[in-house]
Amino acid sequence: MYWLKRLRDSISTHKNFLCIGLDPDIQKLPLTNHGIAVDVESFCKEIIDATLDYCIAYKINTAFFEALGFEGFKIMENVVNYIPNSHFKIADAKRADIGNTSKKYAEAFFNELPFDALTLNPYLGIDSLTPFDEFPNKALIILAATSNPGGNDFQNLISGDKPLYLHVVEKCVQNSFKNDILFVAGATHPQKLADIRNAAPNNFLLIPGFGTQGGSLNEIFNSAVNNKNIDILVNSSRAIIYASNAMDFAEKAREEASKVCEEMCSLLGSN
Amino acid sequence: MYWLKRLRDSISTHKNFLCIGLDPDIQKLPLTNHGIAVDVESFCKEIIDATLDYCIAYKINTAFFEALGFEGFKIMENVVNYIPNSHFKIADAKRADIGNTSKKYAEAFFNELPFDALTLNPYLGIDSLTPFDEFPNKALIILAATSNPGGNDFQNLISGDKPLYLHVVEKCVQNSFKNDILFVAGATHPQKLADIRNAAPNNFLLIPGFGTQGGSLNEIFNSAVNNKNIDILVNSSRAIIYASNAMDFAEKAREEASKVCEEMCSLLGSN
Repeated sequence: MYWLKRLRDSISTHKNFLCIGLDPDIQKLPLTNHGIAVDVESFCKEIIDATLDYCIAYKINTAFFEALGFEGFKIMENVVNYIPNSHFKIADAKRADIGNTSKKYAEAFFNELPFDALTLNPYLGIDSLTPFDEFPNKALIILAATSNPGGNDFQNLISGDKPLYLHVVEKCVQNSFKNDILFVAGATHPQKLADIRNAAPNNFLLIPGFGTQGGSLNEIFNSAVNNKNIDILVNSSRAIIYASNAMDFAEKAREEASKVCEEMCSLLGSN
Repeated sequence: MYWLKRLRDSISTHKNFLCIGLDPDIQKLPLTNHGIAVDVESFCKEIIDATLDYCIAYKINTAFFEALGFEGFKIMENVVNYIPNSHFKIADAKRADIGNTSKKYAEAFFNELPFDALTLNPYLGIDSLTPFDEFPNKALIILAATSNPGGNDFQNLISGDKPLYLHVVEKCVQNSFKNDILFVAGATHPQKLADIRNAAPNNFLLIPGFGTQGGSLNEIFNSAVNNKNIDILVNSSRAIIYASNAMDFAEKAREEASKVCEEMCSLLGSN
């Protein structure tokens, strides 16, 4: 119960449950006065500096770094190292493979890089997830219901009396993982959020799809919160990091994060 | 029908359907006379040199390179560039995410790196796969039934009249992809192979799990072959690349590949 406790303490101290997603798209980075795009590393670091006070976690979307080739990997390393240890560091990489390969992914994100948590795709089953559990004090964030429309294609298929995404949650909850397990539950489906909370009463939920993709904070909170302990992390990426496409991007990101943080504080106050 | 035709030509010319998996585990690399492990890049290149004549494809298991940090990414780039264009170059990365993120993964493997094909995890649905289809003359290799025991956990769940893995195959076959679509079908389940072949009569199947994981070539061939066009790629990784753990590793890999190739040639002859 390492991250469960640390995250609960963070929420209670900082009065928010905001995770900021770092998806630095080189086609969207602001231009300086000289017409040159801000570099990815500086962009991420300025966003982090500007928003640290208003969130408790950062989620690095690895695809945006991989798209830059091996230099992108170096930049990702620099960025994750730049995030202070006060904040929960998530690699949103959606990995998992057969056992000996999953072990290598775990080494990549938990040994080579200092991430606290990694998002995992459950399609290959429990034995594709357990190698990540061999690294102490790390958290495993397993996809249950994703926020994209296509998430319904297979995740909603009913087998027995419930959809695939609930089979995933139940089987993972029943498995004796040593580390803390979180579930990804998209903000765009409040009913699924509620069902997942019901199936996993004591797990944190990482909730993407708030902001650009459309879920409302109030609705998310009411569907997903664990009344005693909150136990949710709500992620916002584009709505914060691209709040401005000009050189005031960090300032505008701070303003946007501060607004979300305030709204969260008020929801926590009323809880 | 770009890769479909190219791969069929390769099989018919070279009389084999062997894909060699490059999973260079630094804990398993042979030691030189001076007690120093062969470096990953040299290991892969020597394996490629030694086995080119006995296979038609290479599958790079990206996790084994990612585990080496950003330098591993550079090594992967050097290795994939070293494979001649006569051979089909697969990145076994099992990616897929929401649309704007999948697009970045596609850029990583199809623009930054010269792979011909990428393995994709279908859990997030069709709209997580289509961004990879925007890159012309590339192939998408979608996981259906994987070779690990845990593959049964969710892939076997029955919804309506069939298991999840057949829903995946059917939905992908029905979708109008512009590029060629292949399916991953584990050698460890001959009945699943036959079911997938039945649901996807005109798609190539990439079949892992032969060799170290245990499927027999004869059984695989009989379950999965498309009688008219063959349309299978059978992958072997560890049984070939670790055929010897000494400095004769390349020679032994060549011998092992040659044996498999000969067996394939004889199966093709009798077909």
